[in-house]
Amino acid sequence: MDMKKYCFGIDIGGTTIKCGFFTAQGELLEKWEIPTRKEDKGSKIPQDVADTIAAKIQEKGIVKDEIAGVGLGVPGPVGEDGTVHQCANLGWGIINIKNIMEELTGLPVQAGNDANVAALGEMWQGGGRGFSDVVMVTLGTGVGGGVILDGRIRAGVCGAAGEIGHIIMEEEDTDAVCGCGGHGHLEQYASATGIVRMAKKKLAADDAPSSLRTLETITAKDVFDHAKAGDQTANDLVDMLGRYLGMALYNIAAVVDPQVFVIGGGVSRAGDILLNAIEKHYNENGISALLGKEFRLATLGNDAGIFGCARMLLD
Amino acid sequence: MDMKKYCFGIDIGGTTIKCGFFTAQGELLEKWEIPTRKEDKGSKIPQDVADTIAAKIQEKGIVKDEIAGVGLGVPGPVGEDGTVHQCANLGWGIINIKNIMEELTGLPVQAGNDANVAALGEMWQGGGRGFSDVVMVTLGTGVGGGVILDGRIRAGVCGAAGEIGHIIMEEEDTDAVCGCGGHGHLEQYASATGIVRMAKKKLAADDAPSSLRTLETITAKDVFDHAKAGDQTANDLVDMLGRYLGMALYNIAAVVDPQVFVIGGGVSRAGDILLNAIEKHYNENGISALLGKEFRLATLGNDAGIFGCARMLLD
Repeated sequence: MDMKKYCFGIDIGGTTIKCGFFTAQGELLEKWEIPTRKEDKGSKIPQDVADTIAAKIQEKGIVKDEIAGVGLGVPGPVGEDGTVHQCANLGWGIINIKNIMEELTGLPVQAGNDANVAALGEMWQGGGRGFSDVVMVTLGTGVGGGVILDGRIRAGVCGAAGEIGHIIMEEEDTDAVCGCGGHGHLEQYASATGIVRMAKKKLAADDAPSSLRTLETITAKDVFDHAKAGDQTANDLVDMLGRYLGMALYNIAAVVDPQVFVIGGGVSRAGDILLNAIEKHYNENGISALLGKEFRLATLGNDAGIFGCARMLLD
Repeated sequence: MDMKKYCFGIDIGGTTIKCGFFTAQGELLEKWEIPTRKEDKGSKIPQDVADTIAAKIQEKGIVKDEIAGVGLGVPGPVGEDGTVHQCANLGWGIINIKNIMEELTGLPVQAGNDANVAALGEMWQGGGRGFSDVVMVTLGTGVGGGVILDGRIRAGVCGAAGEIGHIIMEEEDTDAVCGCGGHGHLEQYASATGIVRMAKKKLAADDAPSSLRTLETITAKDVFDHAKAGDQTANDLVDMLGRYLGMALYNIAAVVDPQVFVIGGGVSRAGDILLNAIEKHYNENGISALLGKEFRLATLGNDAGIFGCARMLLD
């Protein structure tokens, strides 16, 4: 009989560290946050995480033998063995965070990339529930992704599997510069920032009437709201977004052929109008074996990461 | 102690069925071919395969207990459980070929898509030897592919993982019609047929002098030969091919992040000039974690399939 009753899911972000205390059955008992101290190249972070775990163990009056371990999400590429290849967000160079945290906590640790653990969380308890082969795309300030195959994260040899935001969409579009130094990547069209960039470009290109012109500043949400209200230019922009995402997700399917796509991040709050635009273009130009996939909205929001972290341990 | 000393690798093609008799250590003891009888919707094929296996068992004077089983390659999508989703090449509809062949042979059977088993064969004994995470692309009359993750074929939920030839490269290029009914897919640029199409288009577009103009008909091999001899137009064509393949393989890496790419098929006989063109463009526009991958030529030729079939059983 297994004595393990609890586990921790710890999702390290650039500003805060989200912490979850779970039962071994995956019930979230408690969640809290601590600040991410990035000074001294992020060297205080591992100890801060160990301290908050130790405090929670003490507070709950439980013993380490009852704890399955700690799942850790990191905002950078993480290899299968827990090696962080670099994490500019936190100031980390190449370190094995799994080994470091096992040393500090005395508990088993599994580490994964933050977008990948969010995908695993959504598979387990969110929009991908009931599926084992899931591709998740997170549309926020940037575009992230996670590839779950046979119920497990595909981390990749250099921890860079699921880097969907850096798929090349428009090789010729050298104006659309990516944070990574490349250009024409999916992130420049499908992130909240990219949607605004496309909107400004389209409005500047001609004088077509559009309710978007009445706004002083445009957000991604505005584009969806005006599209829902019937504005043609806004609808064209949503269609353009659907075209980029539909094509990118079809090309991803041609590599791993998943069961379902889960769309998350702030942009996904647009809801069905977004899913419909993606699905229309996904099914437009491809081989029949890959068509007709399911598209779902993410449901866990910012908690997806801690759920996925917990799942890594219970796997 | 394991008594299994032998296994069979059977690669079913549209014209011939390639058969291999292997030791359980993966040594190819003997290979032979039988014709593919496609009449009556390919219904004779399973019995033909069972008969040739039974004949070989008798000829060698061995017993079934000594045989690990039969690995089967099929020219169509095959699910993890051995379901062929459709195989227009052979006339098959939806059948479970694993169950059918186990019934007919009385041996354990594993089935996979032909391009996927070829990729597995190249990983095991060919250009991808020593690696466990391999993406293979086969450049022949069409473009095929196989994705090997952690040493195993990624078949995909509908058996359509690794359908690399159907990645969309040029959504706007509606002239470049694909066999699948789509357009602008990788196959229309990177297959032998696609290379010839691009060459004709380029020669027709202007009057630039080119030694290719002296040829009555142009083959993909001509393009490489003239490029090696210094013809500018031919070199531009090789560069264009490298651009399509480099971009497609980079986008594949952003999904699964493999260790190595193996390039096979008739077009790959061009050798280093092809690898160099792909590698140049692969490294041109992407995130650093995905750059600097290895590119290798396939080495097993038409035997890749039977090797991969055998490997499925010995896994």
